[in-house]
Amino acid sequence: MIKVGVLGATGAVGQRFVQLLAEHPWFELTTLTASDRSAGKVYRDVVNWRLEVPFPEKAGGIRISPTTKESLKDVDLVFSALPAEVAADVETMCAANGVAVCSNASSHRMEADIPLVVPEVNPDHLGLIDVQKDKGRDGFIVTNPNCSTIVLTLSLAPLRSYPFTDLRVATMQAISGAGFQGVAAMAIYDNVIPYIGSEEEKMETESLKILGKFDGSGIVNAPFRVSASCHRVPVIDGHTMAVWLDIKEPVDKVVRAFRDYKPPIHGLPSQPAKSVEYLDQPDRPQPRLDRGKGNGMTVSVGRVREGLRYVTMGHNTIRGAAGASVLNAELIYTRKYL
Amino acid sequence: MIKVGVLGATGAVGQRFVQLLAEHPWFELTTLTASDRSAGKVYRDVVNWRLEVPFPEKAGGIRISPTTKESLKDVDLVFSALPAEVAADVETMCAANGVAVCSNASSHRMEADIPLVVPEVNPDHLGLIDVQKDKGRDGFIVTNPNCSTIVLTLSLAPLRSYPFTDLRVATMQAISGAGFQGVAAMAIYDNVIPYIGSEEEKMETESLKILGKFDGSGIVNAPFRVSASCHRVPVIDGHTMAVWLDIKEPVDKVVRAFRDYKPPIHGLPSQPAKSVEYLDQPDRPQPRLDRGKGNGMTVSVGRVREGLRYVTMGHNTIRGAAGASVLNAELIYTRKYL
Amino acid sequence: MIKVGVLGATGAVGQRFVQLLAEHPWFELTTLTASDRSAGKVYRDVVNWRLEVPFPEKAGGIRISPTTKESLKDVDLVFSALPAEVAADVETMCAANGVAVCSNASSHRMEADIPLVVPEVNPDHLGLIDVQKDKGRDGFIVTNPNCSTIVLTLSLAPLRSYPFTDLRVATMQAISGAGFQGVAAMAIYDNVIPYIGSEEEKMETESLKILGKFDGSGIVNAPFRVSASCHRVPVIDGHTMAVWLDIKEPVDKVVRAFRDYKPPIHGLPSQPAKSVEYLDQPDRPQPRLDRGKGNGMTVSVGRVREGLRYVTMGHNTIRGAAGASVLNAELIYTRKYL
Amino acid sequence: MIKVGVLGATGAVGQRFVQLLAEHPWFELTTLTASDRSAGKVYRDVVNWRLEVPFPEKAGGIRISPTTKESLKDVDLVFSALPAEVAADVETMCAANGVAVCSNASSHRMEADIPLVVPEVNPDHLGLIDVQKDKGRDGFIVTNPNCSTIVLTLSLAPLRSYPFTDLRVATMQAISGAGFQGVAAMAIYDNVIPYIGSEEEKMETESLKILGKFDGSGIVNAPFRVSASCHRVPVIDGHTMAVWLDIKEPVDKVVRAFRDYKPPIHGLPSQPAKSVEYLDQPDRPQPRLDRGKGNGMTVSVGRVREGLRYVTMGHNTIRGAAGASVLNAELIYTRKYL
Repeated sequence: MIKVGVLGATGAVGQRFVQLLAEHPWFELTTLTASDRSAGKVYRDVVNWRLEVPFPEKAGGIRISPTTKESLKDVDLVFSALPAEVAADVETMCAANGVAVCSNASSHRMEADIPLVVPEVNPDHLGLIDVQKDKGRDGFIVTNPNCSTIVLTLSLAPLRSYPFTDLRVATMQAISGAGFQGVAAMAIYDNVIPYIGSEEEKMETESLKILGKFDGSGIVNAPFRVSASCHRVPVIDGHTMAVWLDIKEPVDKVVRAFRDYKPPIHGLPSQPAKSVEYLDQPDRPQPRLDRGKGNGMTVSVGRVREGLRYVTMGHNTIRGAAGASVLNAELIYTRKYL
Repeated sequence: MIKVGVLGATGAVGQRFVQLLAEHPWFELTTLTASDRSAGKVYRDVVNWRLEVPFPEKAGGIRISPTTKESLKDVDLVFSALPAEVAADVETMCAANGVAVCSNASSHRMEADIPLVVPEVNPDHLGLIDVQKDKGRDGFIVTNPNCSTIVLTLSLAPLRSYPFTDLRVATMQAISGAGFQGVAAMAIYDNVIPYIGSEEEKMETESLKILGKFDGSGIVNAPFRVSASCHRVPVIDGHTMAVWLDIKEPVDKVVRAFRDYKPPIHGLPSQPAKSVEYLDQPDRPQPRLDRGKGNGMTVSVGRVREGLRYVTMGHNTIRGAAGASVLNAELIYTRKYL
Repeated sequence: MIKVGVLGATGAVGQRFVQLLAEHPWFELTTLTASDRSAGKVYRDVVNWRLEVPFPEKAGGIRISPTTKESLKDVDLVFSALPAEVAADVETMCAANGVAVCSNASSHRMEADIPLVVPEVNPDHLGLIDVQKDKGRDGFIVTNPNCSTIVLTLSLAPLRSYPFTDLRVATMQAISGAGFQGVAAMAIYDNVIPYIGSEEEKMETESLKILGKFDGSGIVNAPFRVSASCHRVPVIDGHTMAVWLDIKEPVDKVVRAFRDYKPPIHGLPSQPAKSVEYLDQPDRPQPRLDRGKGNGMTVSVGRVREGLRYVTMGHNTIRGAAGASVLNAELIYTRKYL
Repeated sequence: MIKVGVLGATGAVGQRFVQLLAEHPWFELTTLTASDRSAGKVYRDVVNWRLEVPFPEKAGGIRISPTTKESLKDVDLVFSALPAEVAADVETMCAANGVAVCSNASSHRMEADIPLVVPEVNPDHLGLIDVQKDKGRDGFIVTNPNCSTIVLTLSLAPLRSYPFTDLRVATMQAISGAGFQGVAAMAIYDNVIPYIGSEEEKMETESLKILGKFDGSGIVNAPFRVSASCHRVPVIDGHTMAVWLDIKEPVDKVVRAFRDYKPPIHGLPSQPAKSVEYLDQPDRPQPRLDRGKGNGMTVSVGRVREGLRYVTMGHNTIRGAAGASVLNAELIYTRKYL
């Protein structure tokens, strides 16, 4: 068993990590970090468990560590649910001390030698781990994209053989994306907020890196343009997106591409039976009904129409955050980087 | 005072008509129609008033008529809130009997000699009334567009001097657009439904007619293409839209066009101080905070960004339905068609 | 394996039955009935699956039967999710033809020889099955209470040794209680509806029967009075209730009674580890966070205060409907009535 | 015109004060205070206006003052929307410096010489102003109750001639009661929170003072007991309550008492046509449909049933907060205390 830890284990994404790791077949959850005032107490006593799934009792007794070199010395890999402003330095410290870092934070995503990975989309980008090692790092950092970008790029995976140059995407994003305290009820109830800080920029830049080519030393961005319009809607979990692509293929051929899609990876514990599932009903996907597919790891697609238009939806805190990092870690493990 | 009636006065749009007409300075509300089983009773006793504004007591004592030639003989103009399948014949009957019809129903919108009017956008299309009269009609029919199309085309009014050929629009539409019973709570709560029957088709065809040219005998459609993706979100009133246009002008020039916009009509009682209002805050417009602007008749615009992208929002049952018809009637009156 | 069927398998409660029975260890789901126009088609093709859990593929291929004597001849037990007005006759017909009926419908609940059972509360009331048999019935009918009444009476089970005479309960009930189409979004969004037809009457009468005594031939109602005030709130699943009882015991003793509660039944497959769970946090139970406890079969209790007041909450379509009937059937099976 | 100020003008209640005072016929809004970093800027530039009514431009140019003796020297009366922990000292300072204070804060409500007033219920309690003056205060403090308590006590006003000794009330309270940032969307969406800090205690103590008797020097509490259970529900504005009273009068007599109720005060500008309105429909009052009655100042009552039970509802930030204070100020003015 690989010994793993979670950095920032009490927040919204941190709780998802603990949920997903408590009974993991390959990883043993041994270490949890949180703010200094929690250090020394057991997880059960410091976390305000807010997920709808039962509290994972197995993790309840883990004593909270401070995030120091010392406290991480017996850990092989850490999952980072830290806020971006804290993550930058802490993750670098971990990697310098021989720890593998799978990070959900945005701090390092766009750095040239950091892989930004969606396992079904660009598993070969893990080659950048060797680039990091060549520079003398003991450990390494692998990141997963922003939640919206993961859903979008995974929905693009079945379409990679149809080159496109222009992509427009309008998102309808869930409130959980902003964390437990991120959106006030008075702000979003009976409302749409047509703005999410930095979200459009992330979708527009991260997508190009993910769909880009690894040339042995770095990533050559994919040659298309993304124009995003991001909106918060009163939905708890599940980001829905309307996508336009300048693909000229007929609708039925595109539908078939979605239906026949087989990802290039297999057998990872967190990988769903279908990474991308095409739904035939005219009014799907819907976040409340479809976000649970594949234990939250399946991205649903529907309504392919001329234009070329389609709708896609995925669970933002599972497939779009904690689950994404865990799947990255599973891929890293099978590729012998641990 | 012009004597007016409302056809279908008990539904969601019908109630809005009664609200807007009960104290109208030019129109005297004398006639209300509803289903046969209500005929003969007074409005107060048959309507289940569901609007957040107080019941207009002045209309409470109006006795419900059946929708017959006889019952409309003293009325100059009727507003139609009928469902499309009923509206087709009833409205034709009214017009044949010398009554002016301002209809919110979709039945006649796309007919060649029926004006489809947003007063600030294409007031000259009322010229089609003469075409109808020339064909021997005693009365006439004027329609207003679908709720989403009104908000979209009004937001385009300030941009007409910048020709564009491609428009993409993703809507986030309120539940009131489907009527009081149209959307089940179990269907939309904590959810997005990425499909509204016929809505995309309406936006894609009606927009071209509204922004088209009246050549004295008919409408020449505007030469652009609309690609719509329509979604229902858990919002009570107010349709929000993300719009992309292939306009190459710089952002600040487009913002100025929105700010400086002056509509070609003036002084109508239902016309708001600003038909289009540009909002500077980065997170506006928002339906809950902005749908009440101009008593629900102002369309708000914000977030103009390169792309060219912007967000627009308007009240779907006021500006997008009953208020639209009333404004049409006011324009018709000032143009001496009554 | 006992062969079972579901009557009315496509509605909200019917879908829950199918979910709970598809993989049941004791019951084999062989028969599903629905409206006549569905008969002959397979379940997968007629149901509009609306639950957040994945569709149970195992049940997908079952061919829909009409609800006739013929179609039920190989079934040992049926679960009835029929609407009350249909249930009355159909259930009687089933029982007359040797089928055991576990019904969620209200039609027969208050009849003198029909058990109205919550397994943890009044398992001995199943003795009424013998009364039914003595009257010459081949099969029999067992009912479960109304959803609110189940949650209330289960919360009272730990308090039965403290006699009380007056109970007041204010409910905050979920929209799923009215079925998929029962509550319009426009009616309940940003709203409370302080009325649910017949609900108060059901709570006030059913509770007395359930907590009453079986004397060998009939039920003697419990000697207390229930005064209910029922309200619909914008929650998807989970009925929350504020309860007042004229119990004079100190708060800590009552809390202990909840904590120490052991139900009189054991080992039923659908029975949760804790039928009643006391929550210490001052702001619990909450429907979104606690309705999933015990796979939806646990009733949560919290906030015991002087008065005597407490708050209780349970999943209305699982513990309060389909799950209640399934648990009844399991109890019936272990008591050798099948 | 009386010169008035608002202390804490940028929060949820502060904004309501500004809305209600901007065009007041008797009061001239001259002074607004907010946090130190806002001082010196104009209101328009510091407030993030979050109400659904348009921003009151007339108040937009008022320059924010610090809350000092100096800045209040030209003001006759201040409305306090300060948080309780700040309000205690600031309000005392104002009163010491000759300013009349109408406070929505809880700090001073239960002090022996401070009137806790609902104008229609206990206008004579203003006699405590003389008690304050006798102690040497230059100005004085008058408070209004907690939002839930106002709605409850106003609903009791028509029933004062039927003595009762026990009152139970279950509240379903709106999120606006906690301020703009008070309730996270993740906490309340699809949920009920059965706890609001100190709310039950406030209802249980304030009600007795309000319905108590002023004996010339102090208040003798009313001789009944209140037992409250307070719950937050996903409603924007409007607190709904289920009330039980040990009144033995027949239902129709109680309904008549509600219908015939005439408050003991008249002609105050903020006083609605009906302070208490009885609604006949079986499913009313409802917060979304009824909170706007009387411009938010009417408390609605419905569903009187044996028990004695009824449901009441009022707008919590208008009737229950800012509007309550303004109405108090109007009463104070007509009673010549200014």
